[in-house]
Amino acid sequence: MGIEIERKFLVANEGWRQDAENTPGAHSTLMCQGYLSSNADRIVRVRIDGEQAFLTIKGRAQGGIDNISRGEWEYPIPVADAQDLLKLCEQPLIEKTRYRIPHEGHVWEVDEFFAENAGLIVAEVELESEQQAFARPAWLGEEVSHDKRYANANLLRHPFSQWDK
Amino acid sequence: MGIEIERKFLVANEGWRQDAENTPGAHSTLMCQGYLSSNADRIVRVRIDGEQAFLTIKGRAQGGIDNISRGEWEYPIPVADAQDLLKLCEQPLIEKTRYRIPHEGHVWEVDEFFAENAGLIVAEVELESEQQAFARPAWLGEEVSHDKRYANANLLRHPFSQWDK
Repeated sequence: MGIEIERKFLVANEGWRQDAENTPGAHSTLMCQGYLSSNADRIVRVRIDGEQAFLTIKGRAQGGIDNISRGEWEYPIPVADAQDLLKLCEQPLIEKTRYRIPHEGHVWEVDEFFAENAGLIVAEVELESEQQAFARPAWLGEEVSHDKRYANANLLRHPFSQWDK
Repeated sequence: MGIEIERKFLVANEGWRQDAENTPGAHSTLMCQGYLSSNADRIVRVRIDGEQAFLTIKGRAQGGIDNISRGEWEYPIPVADAQDLLKLCEQPLIEKTRYRIPHEGHVWEVDEFFAENAGLIVAEVELESEQQAFARPAWLGEEVSHDKRYANANLLRHPFSQWDK
């Protein structure tokens, strides 16, 4: 088991697109993911990430006051299996482009969503401890780590296009 | 993906125990399994089978009139992962001894359940097609392939000890 500790933010402006193009080591992949279980106690996710695919299980977030840690188990699976499994998943699926942008020792993952969640852009950073410091890119906006609407499993039932904004 | 085609029976008497002891190649293992999803459209099972562990996904049963076929995807995982994942699963877990008994070209799996399902004994045979013939052991009882109460995922919520018998 790994422990996943991540913080999630909106973006304040479009500056991340330049970083995604110009930062050495930055790259992007198309992701399609679905949920065999979107129950927050035991999330089971199928994801195709470019040429790879994974089956991932996540437990309920718990830990410190920030509640941003949770158990995560991830297994690589054949892409052909993932394509079949995505058909079993709760619908709709979640599609997004993930841009990975190195910034001062961390890699930021900026997800630009499509389809029912078009318009939503979220930036995440994975930390080694809940207290670990990190440098904020200039384009980083409001933190939404604790706003459950932004959990990908919740975007299934309440897609961004249907939010009161 | 594999397709799982299996038929399930009660046992008519205790004769299977002698076969489990005396048939060359017969053996038994202790199984503990739980469900990350018990939704019949997308079952996700964690199972420790003796010294091995598996993560298994099953789609809804479909196919011929007998409705005994379904998609199945199975991935070996470390036993230590399975022990952690079982804690995430819906409770209670299902514990049973599985006896594997060769009989005229097929291997019968006889499951003897414990705990909330004590008293339940079920024999299954896996087939290559829904029409495939198979020899019935002398101890084989009533077929229950279509009785959803006997699905392991349903034994979670309606354990054998609570059935009207």
